[in-house]
Amino acid sequence: MPLETSPRNVARPARRDLANAIRALSMDAVQAANSGHPGAPMGMADIAEVLWNDYLRHNPANPEWVDRDRFVLSNGHGSMLLYSLLHLTGYPLSMDEIRNFRQFGYRTAGHPEREAELGIETTTGPLGQGISNAVGMALAEKMLAAEFNRPGFEIVDHKTWVFTGDGCLMEGISHEVCSLAGTLKLGKLICLYDDNGISIDGEVAAWFSDDTAARFRAYGWQVIDNVDGHDSDALNAAIAEAVADEERPTIICCKTVIGFGSPNKQGTASTHGAPLGADEIAATREALGWQYPPFEIPQEIANAWDGRDKGAASEQAWNDLFARYELEFPELAAEFLRRKHGALPESWNEFAAGKIAEIDTAGAKMATRQASLLALNAFAPALPELIGGSADLTGSNLTKHDGSRPVSGDDASGNYLYFGVREFGMSAICNGMALHGSFIPYSGTFLTFSDYARNALRMAALMELQNIFVYTHDSIGLGEDGPTHQPVEHVASLRIMPNMRVWRPCDTVETAVAWRDAIERRNGPVSLVLTRQGLPHQARSVAQRDNIARGGYVLRDSDGTPELILIATGSEVALAVESAAVLSDSGVKVRVVSMPCVELFDQQTADYRESVLPAAVSARVAIEAGVTEGWWRFVGTSGRVVGMDTFGQSAPAEKLFEHYGFSVDNVVSVTRELLD
Amino acid sequence: MPLETSPRNVARPARRDLANAIRALSMDAVQAANSGHPGAPMGMADIAEVLWNDYLRHNPANPEWVDRDRFVLSNGHGSMLLYSLLHLTGYPLSMDEIRNFRQFGYRTAGHPEREAELGIETTTGPLGQGISNAVGMALAEKMLAAEFNRPGFEIVDHKTWVFTGDGCLMEGISHEVCSLAGTLKLGKLICLYDDNGISIDGEVAAWFSDDTAARFRAYGWQVIDNVDGHDSDALNAAIAEAVADEERPTIICCKTVIGFGSPNKQGTASTHGAPLGADEIAATREALGWQYPPFEIPQEIANAWDGRDKGAASEQAWNDLFARYELEFPELAAEFLRRKHGALPESWNEFAAGKIAEIDTAGAKMATRQASLLALNAFAPALPELIGGSADLTGSNLTKHDGSRPVSGDDASGNYLYFGVREFGMSAICNGMALHGSFIPYSGTFLTFSDYARNALRMAALMELQNIFVYTHDSIGLGEDGPTHQPVEHVASLRIMPNMRVWRPCDTVETAVAWRDAIERRNGPVSLVLTRQGLPHQARSVAQRDNIARGGYVLRDSDGTPELILIATGSEVALAVESAAVLSDSGVKVRVVSMPCVELFDQQTADYRESVLPAAVSARVAIEAGVTEGWWRFVGTSGRVVGMDTFGQSAPAEKLFEHYGFSVDNVVSVTRELLD
Repeated sequence: MPLETSPRNVARPARRDLANAIRALSMDAVQAANSGHPGAPMGMADIAEVLWNDYLRHNPANPEWVDRDRFVLSNGHGSMLLYSLLHLTGYPLSMDEIRNFRQFGYRTAGHPEREAELGIETTTGPLGQGISNAVGMALAEKMLAAEFNRPGFEIVDHKTWVFTGDGCLMEGISHEVCSLAGTLKLGKLICLYDDNGISIDGEVAAWFSDDTAARFRAYGWQVIDNVDGHDSDALNAAIAEAVADEERPTIICCKTVIGFGSPNKQGTASTHGAPLGADEIAATREALGWQYPPFEIPQEIANAWDGRDKGAASEQAWNDLFARYELEFPELAAEFLRRKHGALPESWNEFAAGKIAEIDTAGAKMATRQASLLALNAFAPALPELIGGSADLTGSNLTKHDGSRPVSGDDASGNYLYFGVREFGMSAICNGMALHGSFIPYSGTFLTFSDYARNALRMAALMELQNIFVYTHDSIGLGEDGPTHQPVEHVASLRIMPNMRVWRPCDTVETAVAWRDAIERRNGPVSLVLTRQGLPHQARSVAQRDNIARGGYVLRDSDGTPELILIATGSEVALAVESAAVLSDSGVKVRVVSMPCVELFDQQTADYRESVLPAAVSARVAIEAGVTEGWWRFVGTSGRVVGMDTFGQSAPAEKLFEHYGFSVDNVVSVTRELLD
Repeated sequence: MPLETSPRNVARPARRDLANAIRALSMDAVQAANSGHPGAPMGMADIAEVLWNDYLRHNPANPEWVDRDRFVLSNGHGSMLLYSLLHLTGYPLSMDEIRNFRQFGYRTAGHPEREAELGIETTTGPLGQGISNAVGMALAEKMLAAEFNRPGFEIVDHKTWVFTGDGCLMEGISHEVCSLAGTLKLGKLICLYDDNGISIDGEVAAWFSDDTAARFRAYGWQVIDNVDGHDSDALNAAIAEAVADEERPTIICCKTVIGFGSPNKQGTASTHGAPLGADEIAATREALGWQYPPFEIPQEIANAWDGRDKGAASEQAWNDLFARYELEFPELAAEFLRRKHGALPESWNEFAAGKIAEIDTAGAKMATRQASLLALNAFAPALPELIGGSADLTGSNLTKHDGSRPVSGDDASGNYLYFGVREFGMSAICNGMALHGSFIPYSGTFLTFSDYARNALRMAALMELQNIFVYTHDSIGLGEDGPTHQPVEHVASLRIMPNMRVWRPCDTVETAVAWRDAIERRNGPVSLVLTRQGLPHQARSVAQRDNIARGGYVLRDSDGTPELILIATGSEVALAVESAAVLSDSGVKVRVVSMPCVELFDQQTADYRESVLPAAVSARVAIEAGVTEGWWRFVGTSGRVVGMDTFGQSAPAEKLFEHYGFSVDNVVSVTRELLD
């Protein structure tokens, strides 16, 4: 492919020279770091230049402008492409940051890490999830527009652009989310595919021979195929065509050369994930006609890239529109701003406390998945930002409340999503909605299938996103569906994920408190782990009820200092209470601690924790229908855990609980052993 | 759709009547269990009847016949379909089992659970994985054929049939594996798609509007579209066409009615996952013209289904062929039988021990991912059954040994698979290869992306499959790629999965022992957790080297009873050894325990464990560059864990280890605190 620069007009540097600024910054930064990925930034530089200079609607001086276009680099290893663009167009990302790419304490991480105030919309790197976040953002835009726009007042009207490589398109999640994006007619989602034919292992033809254009047509996308990714005019025309179709999402398949500009390495896997080396960088400078030293951008190139004036004008136009909207629709505008800020309704605290008290008073006996629906029905009327859904288990997860209205391709005004059997895609799409803002997403599946979505949960935790996961059928208590559907290790496994908060409530009251916490937690995901089977209501004082929010508390106490503490969660709390009654009757002083949220309990003061689990009481038994790991820290090496470290089996639930030792008899017998 | 039966010939019951036997058994068994899924078995009964009676090559009297066709019910919730077929054709699955569907102690579990001796080829239920296992089986067949067949001696020549519903095709993993199946030209893989337009949440059109035929054509499959799934002749013709194309995998898209036969419920989601109810069952009997009581099959129907004679003849023909093969190619035949039995080569024990001793003697300092390659190069020449691959990280995972030869669509004689960026698909395909038999699969990716594949690992553990997972870049030690790529919770999370064995070796010797264990372990998966960065070699006596296989052992000891025990794994063993040296110098009696495999250590005798971790020594510090959970059981509530319960960041590895406290200074200081 020719490397000549081609002048566009006299006043402005040639487009190729603008693109070469990205190439130079990328290859030099990777070289300085002695690690990183120059191939994708160099290959996609021309595409990025056209998009960012001619189409992207953004304001570098205010990266958090609510109606900005969203840009997602799904092939996150090409992070230097994004950092170059942010630096060149005028975001607060200095050359010093570029120079210190991948170094301790700098914001130019190896893979882009979400930083809203810097224009990094999402953390990418785990392939396939960026494009999934983008689907979530485009969906959020469409839903928000349906809710707030009024004729002549398109206050929500932005596009979601996503760059993707072969890797994202090989990943299964791309199937899940692109299929759904087609069905939901996300016409403002535009994907630019870096079809360079190379992945880490070499030429992809030997392991990726899909007809990608045909695949996306099968999803109902507009496909613009065979675009020369180094021809600015062709790219411009393709993007214009993409923009024109607001009915269908668009994928533009761009033929590119990985590492474009490197005379001896371009087009090969060697440019993918390693520095080019000093000699090849010199040769590339020569080939590109880029005569400037590393980390220096000549003024005319810098000027041509600077997007601040245009960005300020774009935002000003929107601000003017919104000012008129405020005049015309003051209540809507106020609600729009509340949602944008992520603030809960003003009277939320009293409202929520009142609902919880009502639920306590009612004292209903039910499965916690039903209790979750009860809580949803209580809270949701106050929260239009709450957007629910399920991965084809609506009737089992009980995620659809009385105010739920489905979202469809033709009507985005609803608040409920039928995600289909797509757990990973669903979770990553919800991450995208949370990233977009103005929504609190929640989504349901069986707990065992949290496995399918696990890395999206991790991304939510890492990005500190408010994303609520409703996980029902939380143990062998689901019964006959058998071991494939019986989570055993999942609760423990979710608890050890940094910044994931896990609730396993024991009744309607704890479930409502868990939901309130999930709604209030702004800086991280919450997993609500719920039973299929019915559970009794536990009686509590108001003080005890208030203590639920501390994650662990004394539910039943002995007269005087306990000799023994039973710690339990969820469906095993009732078992602990019953066992305690039997032990009490025989003269043992037993305390029962309910610990629905271990992470919150860990965050309490040492005094509070000591008041619940006094160090002096070393006889402790934890009871949870799952793996024992995780409880030793609470019961000590001399304690006992009634749990199960094997898979379950297919049989009615009662039979299984009995078989695996979740019975009063067994708990009493384990306890007596311990006390003897 | 008409429900009339249509006679095929005089001597034999009508095909529809044969299919109705499946419908009756399925609806009655679900009703008796009061839970289960009648919809899919009733909808796919006609398809199953044609396939099993006219095409499937199997011998009910010997379900483990090595050259049988493989049948996979990917929509595993339709388990009664499979149980009906097994019972009707003559497998050792009694009517008593059918009557006790989903009950404790019976083999008719809610979802099919692999039982080779019963004809249940794989455990299905978690959607998308059955079809992935099938891809692995078809791949294994093609590779085994390339290795063992000789002109005129097609001793490996069987098909892999898979039934799938909408759910499997929505799941992302179906994209990964079907794309690869097309590329690898798995022409003997035939998929029958139950296109009934219904999933649990209702009519799928609102969330699944793919043109599935076009999608599969984009993967390079033969697509036979718009087949009436209730028309036996049409099905017969379609299957014949599928069989004729040995170059491409085939999907037959069958239009069906879910719950076919139920006059008031068929075609609706209400038949999917709940009993039809007594009244509707009576109405269905009427509509189908099935006048027999529950769990009774009239003799002429039973006779027509019985596949034992035909099966015995099929196997006999193969036995005759194999007998001639044995005469012609005695060595090949012996090797074929060894592989079929899953026996290691005769001299394996001495061979492996010798290699480990050599590696110890060489005492090389290197990353354990390099040590893994060293072990592979040592062991692989003796093990043609070892089939490797990587999810597009071959050069990073170092999974390709000197004897690796790639498998391609046109040449299946290799032993290395470029899986592309498809972690979940790769892992589930390897499960399929293990299920097929005659191979030991291993596959690599970064440890952090074990998340993507997690439920496939769980299925390997549940099915007790030999499947080796090579997970490199095992901690913040990977450095600049940052927190998305830095596993923190993954080692702990793998350890709590029942029946998963996790090795985190500290040098070349422990890595070789880990590999030997992975190769020898027949009844479950092994995860090999390996560093990116270089590690020193640890000196050991022969007795110490032998103790590695016990999972935990004393690597450095104090003179006399230790005051303190440091427990470490992998890259932190060297840190423990260095810290111990500093502490020793200041007069502390320190023991260092290396614990590369916690599960194996747990399985040792109480005496051995006490000899390594004497109860009397309560001052204990565990060191591992990951979450602390999991170590409290070993160090007790009074011990310390040097770990990290937060995500990492992007920076050079040394900087990160220092920052997060994995330094001699910090270990010494934590230890002193503990001893004071």
